[in-house]
Amino acid sequence: MSVEVIAVGGYEEVGKNMSAVKVGDDVVIFDMGINLDRIHIHEDTDIARMHSLDLIERGVIPNDTLMKDVDGKVRAIVFSHGHLDHIGAVAKLAHRYDAPLIGTPYTLALAENSIKQERKFEVSNPLQVLNAGEKMQLSPDITLEFVHTTHSIPQAVHPVLHTPEGIIVYANDFKFDNHMMLSPPPDYDRLRQLGRKGVLALIVETTRMTETKQEKTYSEKVARIVLEDIMKDMLTSKEGLLVTTFSSHIERIQAICNIAQKSNRKILLLGRSMERFGSIAERMGLLELPKSASIFGSPKSVNRALARAEEKRSDYILVTTGHQGEPDALLPRIASGKTHFNVHPGDNVVISAPIIPNPTNAANRNLMERRLKGNGARIYTNAHVSGHAGREDHRDFIRMLQPEHIIPSHGDLEMLAAYTEMAEEEGYKMGNDIHVLRNGQAQVFNGGI
Amino acid sequence: MSVEVIAVGGYEEVGKNMSAVKVGDDVVIFDMGINLDRIHIHEDTDIARMHSLDLIERGVIPNDTLMKDVDGKVRAIVFSHGHLDHIGAVAKLAHRYDAPLIGTPYTLALAENSIKQERKFEVSNPLQVLNAGEKMQLSPDITLEFVHTTHSIPQAVHPVLHTPEGIIVYANDFKFDNHMMLSPPPDYDRLRQLGRKGVLALIVETTRMTETKQEKTYSEKVARIVLEDIMKDMLTSKEGLLVTTFSSHIERIQAICNIAQKSNRKILLLGRSMERFGSIAERMGLLELPKSASIFGSPKSVNRALARAEEKRSDYILVTTGHQGEPDALLPRIASGKTHFNVHPGDNVVISAPIIPNPTNAANRNLMERRLKGNGARIYTNAHVSGHAGREDHRDFIRMLQPEHIIPSHGDLEMLAAYTEMAEEEGYKMGNDIHVLRNGQAQVFNGGI
Amino acid sequence: MSVEVIAVGGYEEVGKNMSAVKVGDDVVIFDMGINLDRIHIHEDTDIARMHSLDLIERGVIPNDTLMKDVDGKVRAIVFSHGHLDHIGAVAKLAHRYDAPLIGTPYTLALAENSIKQERKFEVSNPLQVLNAGEKMQLSPDITLEFVHTTHSIPQAVHPVLHTPEGIIVYANDFKFDNHMMLSPPPDYDRLRQLGRKGVLALIVETTRMTETKQEKTYSEKVARIVLEDIMKDMLTSKEGLLVTTFSSHIERIQAICNIAQKSNRKILLLGRSMERFGSIAERMGLLELPKSASIFGSPKSVNRALARAEEKRSDYILVTTGHQGEPDALLPRIASGKTHFNVHPGDNVVISAPIIPNPTNAANRNLMERRLKGNGARIYTNAHVSGHAGREDHRDFIRMLQPEHIIPSHGDLEMLAAYTEMAEEEGYKMGNDIHVLRNGQAQVFNGGI
Amino acid sequence: MSVEVIAVGGYEEVGKNMSAVKVGDDVVIFDMGINLDRIHIHEDTDIARMHSLDLIERGVIPNDTLMKDVDGKVRAIVFSHGHLDHIGAVAKLAHRYDAPLIGTPYTLALAENSIKQERKFEVSNPLQVLNAGEKMQLSPDITLEFVHTTHSIPQAVHPVLHTPEGIIVYANDFKFDNHMMLSPPPDYDRLRQLGRKGVLALIVETTRMTETKQEKTYSEKVARIVLEDIMKDMLTSKEGLLVTTFSSHIERIQAICNIAQKSNRKILLLGRSMERFGSIAERMGLLELPKSASIFGSPKSVNRALARAEEKRSDYILVTTGHQGEPDALLPRIASGKTHFNVHPGDNVVISAPIIPNPTNAANRNLMERRLKGNGARIYTNAHVSGHAGREDHRDFIRMLQPEHIIPSHGDLEMLAAYTEMAEEEGYKMGNDIHVLRNGQAQVFNGGI
Repeated sequence: MSVEVIAVGGYEEVGKNMSAVKVGDDVVIFDMGINLDRIHIHEDTDIARMHSLDLIERGVIPNDTLMKDVDGKVRAIVFSHGHLDHIGAVAKLAHRYDAPLIGTPYTLALAENSIKQERKFEVSNPLQVLNAGEKMQLSPDITLEFVHTTHSIPQAVHPVLHTPEGIIVYANDFKFDNHMMLSPPPDYDRLRQLGRKGVLALIVETTRMTETKQEKTYSEKVARIVLEDIMKDMLTSKEGLLVTTFSSHIERIQAICNIAQKSNRKILLLGRSMERFGSIAERMGLLELPKSASIFGSPKSVNRALARAEEKRSDYILVTTGHQGEPDALLPRIASGKTHFNVHPGDNVVISAPIIPNPTNAANRNLMERRLKGNGARIYTNAHVSGHAGREDHRDFIRMLQPEHIIPSHGDLEMLAAYTEMAEEEGYKMGNDIHVLRNGQAQVFNGGI
Repeated sequence: MSVEVIAVGGYEEVGKNMSAVKVGDDVVIFDMGINLDRIHIHEDTDIARMHSLDLIERGVIPNDTLMKDVDGKVRAIVFSHGHLDHIGAVAKLAHRYDAPLIGTPYTLALAENSIKQERKFEVSNPLQVLNAGEKMQLSPDITLEFVHTTHSIPQAVHPVLHTPEGIIVYANDFKFDNHMMLSPPPDYDRLRQLGRKGVLALIVETTRMTETKQEKTYSEKVARIVLEDIMKDMLTSKEGLLVTTFSSHIERIQAICNIAQKSNRKILLLGRSMERFGSIAERMGLLELPKSASIFGSPKSVNRALARAEEKRSDYILVTTGHQGEPDALLPRIASGKTHFNVHPGDNVVISAPIIPNPTNAANRNLMERRLKGNGARIYTNAHVSGHAGREDHRDFIRMLQPEHIIPSHGDLEMLAAYTEMAEEEGYKMGNDIHVLRNGQAQVFNGGI
Repeated sequence: MSVEVIAVGGYEEVGKNMSAVKVGDDVVIFDMGINLDRIHIHEDTDIARMHSLDLIERGVIPNDTLMKDVDGKVRAIVFSHGHLDHIGAVAKLAHRYDAPLIGTPYTLALAENSIKQERKFEVSNPLQVLNAGEKMQLSPDITLEFVHTTHSIPQAVHPVLHTPEGIIVYANDFKFDNHMMLSPPPDYDRLRQLGRKGVLALIVETTRMTETKQEKTYSEKVARIVLEDIMKDMLTSKEGLLVTTFSSHIERIQAICNIAQKSNRKILLLGRSMERFGSIAERMGLLELPKSASIFGSPKSVNRALARAEEKRSDYILVTTGHQGEPDALLPRIASGKTHFNVHPGDNVVISAPIIPNPTNAANRNLMERRLKGNGARIYTNAHVSGHAGREDHRDFIRMLQPEHIIPSHGDLEMLAAYTEMAEEEGYKMGNDIHVLRNGQAQVFNGGI
Repeated sequence: MSVEVIAVGGYEEVGKNMSAVKVGDDVVIFDMGINLDRIHIHEDTDIARMHSLDLIERGVIPNDTLMKDVDGKVRAIVFSHGHLDHIGAVAKLAHRYDAPLIGTPYTLALAENSIKQERKFEVSNPLQVLNAGEKMQLSPDITLEFVHTTHSIPQAVHPVLHTPEGIIVYANDFKFDNHMMLSPPPDYDRLRQLGRKGVLALIVETTRMTETKQEKTYSEKVARIVLEDIMKDMLTSKEGLLVTTFSSHIERIQAICNIAQKSNRKILLLGRSMERFGSIAERMGLLELPKSASIFGSPKSVNRALARAEEKRSDYILVTTGHQGEPDALLPRIASGKTHFNVHPGDNVVISAPIIPNPTNAANRNLMERRLKGNGARIYTNAHVSGHAGREDHRDFIRMLQPEHIIPSHGDLEMLAAYTEMAEEEGYKMGNDIHVLRNGQAQVFNGGI
């Protein structure tokens, strides 16, 4: 029985992840993401209304047309976590496959939400929840297991396939964080067990491989300490206080709320995606909002909330979208004076997010920061830690799993190459047991049986 | 008789240059420029229709309101050269002074053109031409001399004031280029003579001080060699050929035309500012266009020309505006498919300009390049040399002039500081004989008399 | 009564700090440091045996010869903390002044130790201890106060002068750390009190001004978390474990010991300077070594300790000198196979220190790391946080103290300039109330009386 | 008949190039270079006296032990050019093969010279000269051709194999320079002819792929212009004048001599390797030294020459070794005051070489420059252009040759990856027709026959 890993998307870029694993005649698909960066290229891209083939041509979603040449039955579409570069193309691609969508509850809720907004296709694949630590039989030969891991969104897992040829681990995306509030540490024990049982192949993200040297990624605890140190004095001041972070980063939002809760300020979570991710997380019991907190997503309700904050700025803390300075998001609009809330001299703005490296983000963020400062605001920018494994975390991961083969993924060629060099230090060799694939290529492992 | 140098603008930024020198009771103003970078901050900035005070507040033009406290008679407004960061505020500020505008012919023609486009103020100061190498008496005590230098625009000069207290040299902006086609080398002999006569103060640009180490800036001859090597094969190919550079860089445009002239391609100079700078330069005999060349500036005529080029792309070379990817300029519009000319696979695009360092330019240029490549074009980007003196050119300049005092200008504080460190290696000392001023500050030299 | 601040050293470099403050006829000297970087230039520099004037000429120690032109009586030589760039020249310069050496107990002990090693001069100035929070009358007009602060060495203070003209604060070097184990947070309350009483001048370090943007420096707590996360699994492994950090960074060494103590490994603190700083700190009760820990400084005892560790590597954790890869320090010598301890495949090396930016350090460190890796060691490098204030800490500091004048110090011109730009955002203006001095220059404040 | 390309060395680093091509039963070896960078790791490396196996273990020379498993007869060892990373291991490896050494005259002369210095092995392979443009039958199936190219050493060629399965081009190293004095441009016509005949595989250098964007490498003409502009005034001054460049860069040395010749200064070429490369080049008529020039290599003769120059510095121009600041080379020794020539204030030093990127070089060069400046010298550093193809030159090269397969070489994995990305823009695909190999791996092409 042969095993084949098919690199559909995310092997030449950070974004639009999609991989397929074929075991005998059964196929399992991992992730269906989009590449937001490509949307800037064509100014008229309206994702919700566009056809898959157009989006494929523009490089926005994975080119899964090659799947029609894969001779096998797709048994499942499995999502690792709920970020858009992993689930964002579900509404464009899933309906072509007669297979259920499988994910943790939060991930599936986000996928469902994404399907609801679709205007072009109808997606009716069944949704099947699988929790971290649980298993599900996908076919006589394949059992799917979700191993708990940590990332910058709740309920991220490593989907693992148990096959007659060995174990296949899909590790897009993760970090090793031992100090989260909303999540236990990764399930290191289970990973080591899998390693001892025999991992045939590891498909693994590489997003931080060019940026980190001999280091492990900092824990969220570091972000908490920094946020606390920064915000402590602000909370009791009479100035305005705005914080922005990733809407999907529920752990971070929880940390902000916990710190704010110690003061008399009311918490306003503002912006459309803040509402989407926040409400679902709250409903599921992942995010525990203090009583003093409210979420507003519709333009009208956001405006009203901002007007109230404008009246007595020392009574509120605004947690907004717009950390990249995207012109239509809330914080940039506040900075440009387009809302009912005006930035005043002395107001504090905490940007709890990095600039996602890309010239458009750098320009938008720069303009936003200059406008905020132009109005007298003070800005803080290093209250953030990455959600992706560093070089030494990856080394630890390899040592835990001891995979026979490694397929680096989720990165451009430079990132895959940097991962490869690290893995070669661990005894692997490119072309022999590390395989660098391009989108559209496949790697076959011929099993011993 | 005391001498005072007043830093009006350009001492905290690259842009909006304006300095004033007061000798006894007479005042001479040097340059009135704008800071294009500040325009991005306020989306609604319409320069031609806005009042000076608004533009001053937005940081777009120099804050010359401090001039009302300067107790003296303004005798002249002198322009060093025709770039917008030196003449662009003339229409906003000059009418407040009862003094003539003095510059070389090309510089004055550009200033006049700028005044014509003004919609808010009426500017009626007399225009007085002074050629490089000539002198003009400004007052009983002050004689103005124009010393020829080289820069990325024709007819750049060092305006020099001869005063009873010594010579004052204004050196914004220049490079030392010994191999230009349209200009002789800088007048080194005269500079050395001035040095021997006694230079009291040198006001000098610093734009490349942080970026250059132990180097002199490359000559335009280098750009010519590179352009020739790049373009040779393109000219005889059947593919489209587009070149973009600074509209005011007549020397470069001449070089491009000369190279193109050896082929059968017709030259189209396209874009509004290409027409403005090009036509005036041609009329004055500075730019010698081959017979096969035409200039089109109005949208309609540009469109017609592009339509012709679209029909037979191998017959033309398009020299366009838009090297920074500015969304409204021509090349970015071509890249986005908004004109009658479509970029085809194999077309060559030569960007003979650097990215002017600024996140917005970086983003615009990146988008433009990705769009061009997305259509199959091939891009060349290093056919450029700077128009500003490098660190070692500045050292040579100091050794020629041996000024008693130096006032670094046209740069941010980092650039002024880098210049200061170099000058200290030459024996000066900050605070003693190098004076770092901020916009709005002044330095007084008490003469011996 | 006029006040004068004299910039003796450290105003053009990171290193050799020395400032003097003259109040009426009384002079107070702050710090007498060396510039280790300059020693590389002359290969034959033997500090302990060289004359001050030679060392001054080589730029190794501050040029205090200008002090003979200062018309006043030196009342005290005050040390801010015990780093070599603040106390390292004491043995070369102090004997010229008829004044006591004043510092906190740990600082004075280190100064005394430095004096003992001197071979050229005899230094017999009296030593006077002053604790943080205490005051001492220096002259009828001047009272010295030590305000507690935090830095990467114990017992760092801001020496403060109370004078008839106002308060003068000397703030070289510090960070704002609220989570140290061996030290309470800085005395923010007292700083704010001083601000309200009226600070005439602030002399303040700028070492991180070019490297930090809108950020506060991370707390030592972050280093603790990272060290714990990294070391946890190593401690129970059978591999060798080496850690290197600054010998003077007692807080960090304590953190390493605390983590190690939870395991069965014995702690060996190794290297000459590790012994010097460690033993004094232990004797003073600053460092609490676990029973399982020993310190060895002499080559012979270090060798014996290493030989024991070589026999059973899993029984020890080696805490060594040599984080910069300096060829004569311990870790680089281990890496080169010059000791009784051989690095084996799988050994872990934690470098809890940055590369101090300088090409020689970069080269030494690179060689050391390549040698360690060549022997199979695994290296970790980001278990470190800076001991110096970040840009936003400095902004907070200004807001607390509200000084009338600021004199940025301890940095090169770029760092001073970057500080100046930040202070200008806070309403100061270079030349008016921020004064950028060069070594050898002075700034006079004419008091109101 | 199958064709196999064996990556022996230079596929994971810049240095120690060695490739083998097996065509049927015949094997041709290309280059046998060393990796100078690895020598720093072990302080006791004495190349001339060490055994190949030791040097292989230390990574200094290619690991050719794998060649014993290659089932075929080595017919020739072919050198592309005379740089040490291509010929430097000849004395350690060639004697193991019963095959002639083939190269252009200058390349062979340098290889011979290298063999003479060997103290460990005896190398007696026959030497066979082949000139650019000529062919030689290596076996019934293989004909070797040398195609002229340009590089930073004379007589560089692309060795080309004509085989029954197609043409194989070995292109380590080259640039496209159309304006050299000592060499015509590359033989573009022949390259295009080969492309039309059918290139099966291209083995190609990648050294500048990560450093260049959309650019072609500048011509030597640019270096000439810059050298002329810099040196013109120096030549007639009374100050000392020192120039340093690569000893093997005969074109550059010729340019320096030509410029110097116009003055009254005598030219001294100084240093051991300056003598080696210079004398051979002069003897072969490649370098035309002016009458006023002399070469000195032995320490004694160098010392005497320096003593003469010290007496009347304005009479000489010293062209020395030591551009990387290597402690034992001449210029660094002059800088440290270890020779009879002392650097005086005002002396000019032109470093016509980049810092070869590596922390040790950066440190050595930094120390040398600081010492030179400490003595008052003025330094110029940008009188240099690279000898390696830029990204767009490589694109042109691909378009000329249209190879069926590409094997990027001479670079680390990042460089190979960057080349691969460019080639993919040209229609290739990694894994299909671009093959990224690691040292020790092979790529087989199964011919149609």
